This record gives sequence, structure tokens and C-alpha cells, in this order.
Amino acid sequence: MSTDAEFLGLRQTGEPGGFEFEVESHLARHDGHLYGGTAIAVSVATSEIVTERNALWMTTQFVATAPPQETISVTTEILAPGRRTNQVRVTGTDSAGRTMFASLGATGVQRPDGSFDGFDTMPQVSPPGESEPDVTPFGSMLRRAGIEFELPVEARHLGFTQVIEFREPEIYSHPDPGPGRMCFWVRRNDDEPITLATAAFMADMVPMSVASAAGFVGGGISLDNTIRAAQFDETRWILIDMRPHIVVGDYGHGSVLIWSESGRLLAHAGQTCSLLRFTGSDFQKVAKGAS
Amino acid sequence: MSTDAEFLGLRQTGEPGGFEFEVESHLARHDGHLYGGTAIAVSVATSEIVTERNALWMTTQFVATAPPQETISVTTEILAPGRRTNQVRVTGTDSAGRTMFASLGATGVQRPDGSFDGFDTMPQVSPPGESEPDVTPFGSMLRRAGIEFELPVEARHLGFTQVIEFREPEIYSHPDPGPGRMCFWVRRNDDEPITLATAAFMADMVPMSVASAAGFVGGGISLDNTIRAAQFDETRWILIDMRPHIVVGDYGHGSVLIWSESGRLLAHAGQTCSLLRFTGSDFQKVAKGAS
Repeated sequence: MSTDAEFLGLRQTGEPGGFEFEVESHLARHDGHLYGGTAIAVSVATSEIVTERNALWMTTQFVATAPPQETISVTTEILAPGRRTNQVRVTGTDSAGRTMFASLGATGVQRPDGSFDGFDTMPQVSPPGESEPDVTPFGSMLRRAGIEFELPVEARHLGFTQVIEFREPEIYSHPDPGPGRMCFWVRRNDDEPITLATAAFMADMVPMSVASAAGFVGGGISLDNTIRAAQFDETRWILIDMRPHIVVGDYGHGSVLIWSESGRLLAHAGQTCSLLRFTGSDFQKVAKGAS
Repeated sequence: MSTDAEFLGLRQTGEPGGFEFEVESHLARHDGHLYGGTAIAVSVATSEIVTERNALWMTTQFVATAPPQETISVTTEILAPGRRTNQVRVTGTDSAGRTMFASLGATGVQRPDGSFDGFDTMPQVSPPGESEPDVTPFGSMLRRAGIEFELPVEARHLGFTQVIEFREPEIYSHPDPGPGRMCFWVRRNDDEPITLATAAFMADMVPMSVASAAGFVGGGISLDNTIRAAQFDETRWILIDMRPHIVVGDYGHGSVLIWSESGRLLAHAGQTCSLLRFTGSDFQKVAKGAS
């Protein structure tokens, strides 16, 4: 098994492509329920284990969530086994057999002689060591909106934010400016290198950037998370570079570019969400309970 | 049924969520086999019919292709029926029951009072009436690479290119410049308004832009196509604005922004592909046979 499997608490069941894990608090949203980022990370990690190849692309559809400590069973199947590329399907179910998430994706053998090239430009930002420490994305959104609200200390590290650290860089220049562009440096608290699975776990933040672009404070229910990957080098910090696209009828879409500390484009992610608008009285609730 | 259903030759079978269609030549690649753009268009169109809602997002995984005139059976299921949002799954199989494509997506009721907003900038390009007529994307790629090769007339309108027209605009300025940025105005030959399903059909062109960004002439086998939608107004022409992201080990990833003639962002699409490099002797073959 991999460091991903350890991070995600994954156990192999002995069935072909069978795994399970518990909804531990670091794999949960702020309200303790299964976090979407966990579902895509599990889909990536189990696909890589089953196919013995690197994940190229993964789409995870969020069908339902599960309460704290629920056991989630995961079945990871190879739909089309190719010499180089495997098309895969991953399904996560709760103990009652209900579907929690469904994923489609592919893994492959990246030709060592195939070139690497990235065709996007990284925003010019301050490095992690010179960026605002101890931030939360939700707190940053409130600050941007000019809202004074101190997140209670006990709400700062609920759920998945227990195991990751956010720092907010200064953005000196942006290659593709527009509303709602936000950047965060993110690392694992234990400073382990970041893999595709853990990057997907960290990057599940599009709803907030889309709400911010539309000019309101909010978040949303993610309908999916899709990630497309390059190769991950030994990076401890990644830059989550959020680029919202569209808001229409209270649904939203956005992308995230994921950069290494050395400025290499590691992955491109995208999400669609159903948006939620928060008002003053919601902040306390949100701080305690929402994803 | 819809204009999409007519375009795609979709028939309802009478089974719940059951449809079928034949791989007619306008739904095929240049070699007559099932075209990936058809698979995502069918997934969008049947999801909208079954749920009576607009598609918000769709990911189609290309598992295999089917020969000319094969009958494809489509099953469109609602995985999670919400008051507003439906999470759906679509599966296409050939007459032997083999999976050709698998899709996950969502449809929803876009709140009429929800704002529309787009957060990207459209490239400044010449309008369709002042753009290079009668182009093919493959021919444009060759021209960009400085390769003199006249596509045989009989190869210019094979497969799906029979029913759509491409024009290549002049790009006056690009908001996010980089290698491989390419734009095409596209419309249906019959000048019917473009829907999300037909836009997805037209935008299945990421491999070419990624190859072009990496500095070689080529294409690729698409592994998936993912589209995220706003609302489509009465647009006859769409601008396919291709933005490649990454090439690594002969796999590639890229996005497409889809704009209306009036400059509204209609959708954002993305694909991952396994890249193919073409050399001189391949062009004739490609012109006749590849997607």
C-alpha cells in the first residue's frame, strides 16, 4: 500500500478491487460527515493501487454523504484494460449499500521519453515562508468581503483542515485576472510530500471562489470534482490557484490550477456546485457545520 | 423529444431511461466509427429528457468505439433525485452488450432569479463573417506548423465534419496567451441554434490543441470529455477557444471555453488524451481515417 492509503486509512478487503475506510474526523467536512475531497482522493489512490499505474484523470460524482465513523466500502474496477492506459470506475457505498460517490477515470504509464510541458502561467505570488500563516479559506473570504468575523478557535481546525495548513500569499501579478481569483499555499501538517491523491483532497474548494467571484459570501454543495494530472515531484507545498468561470441560476463552475513550489504545473482540477449564500447569522453555523 | 434527439437520431425504447441510436456517418469519426463527441452529446440530451432539467455538468468516459451503423443502446438513470438537482449516470453499450461509453453528470433547475455572471475574458477575434471560411481544424494545424499538405476534398467532410462548418478567426488579442491557443467559429450546417449537447459534440478537439502546444503535429485518443454549462441563448455560431494545459509522457490535458457570438461564456469543457504524433506519411492516413 502507499502513503496515500495510510493517509486515507484504506484497507484492502481481499475482494478484487475491494477496499474500505472509516469516516475519521480528518476525512470529514466541518460537520464530521464524509468530505468530497476524501472521495476523489480515495478514487485516485485505489485506482493507482489496482492498476499499478499513475492516475491521469479522475472525475468523482458526489451522490450522498455519510456520518462520522461510518465504514465506506470501495470497489475499484478496470473497465478497459489497455497496454498503456486503463479506464477505471470506482464506487463508494455506505454500510447499507447506498452509493456515496461514483468515479470514472484513467491511469496510465507515462512514457519516460515523453516530454513534460506546461502551457499556463503561474501567478506571481509570495513564497510560503513569506505568506500569511494560520489562515482558513473561509476566514480569507470574509476578510476579502470586508466582514469582521473572528472564526472561533475550535472551528479553525475541524474536519480535513486538521491535517493541512493554509497560507495566503500576496499576489503580485496574475496571468488571467478576473473576479474571484484566489491563491493558497497548502501543505500536510506532517510535511509529507504531496501526491495527486492528496492534492485532489486539498483542492476541493471551487465553490468558495465561485461565490466570491459572484460577489457574495458563501460556499456550495460540490456536485463533482475532476482532476487531470502531470507528474508529482517531491513537493511539500502546493499553490491552489482558483479560477472561477461561471455562475448561473445559483449553480457555479470553476477550475483550480495546482502548482509546485518550484513553479511546475502539477494538475488542473474543476468542479460544479450548487451555491449557498451566507448571511451574518450563518457564519457561526458555517464555521461549525458546513463543508 | 428535442432538436438534440433529432440531430442524434435518438429513439426511446420504452424501457425506463432507455434510448438507442445508430452510428450514422455524421455521428462518426473520420473512419466511420463512433465519435466521442456523439457520446457526450447523447449523454447530455438523454439526461435532459429523463430529468426534465438542464444539464449542468457531464463527464463522458470513452471506453471503446463501435463500427458504422452499429446500434448503441443507452441507459440513463437518476442516481440521486433532488428537489432541484439530479445526479445522473448514462451508459452506452453496443449490440453485444459491451460498454462503449460511461457518463456521470448532473441536471438542475437554474433559479430564474439567480444571477448570470462569467469570470473569464473572451479572446478578441474577427467575427464569423470576417473569418477564414471552409477550414478544417486538422488543415489549420498543418498550416500553423508550416507544413504544406492539401487535405483531399473527399476527406474534408467525413464523419461529424459533414454537419458542421468551421471558420478560423484572426486572434487580435488573447487574455491568457500561451502555446497552442487556437480558436474556431463553429455552426451547424443547417444553422439550427446550438444547444449544450451540440456544443459538446463540436468541442471534442482538445488533443489537437495539446499536440500543437507541445510543438508537434498530431492528435490523440480522447479518454474523456467533461463539460460544465451556463444557459444557451439563441446562438448559431459558437467560438471554440482552446487552452491546452499539460503534456506529460505522451498524455495531455486541455480546456475549451465556449463563447456565444455575443461574447457570453456558455460552457467550459476539458479533456485528457493519449497523444499521437503524426509524420508526413501519416497525413494521408489521418485525413482518411483518424478522429
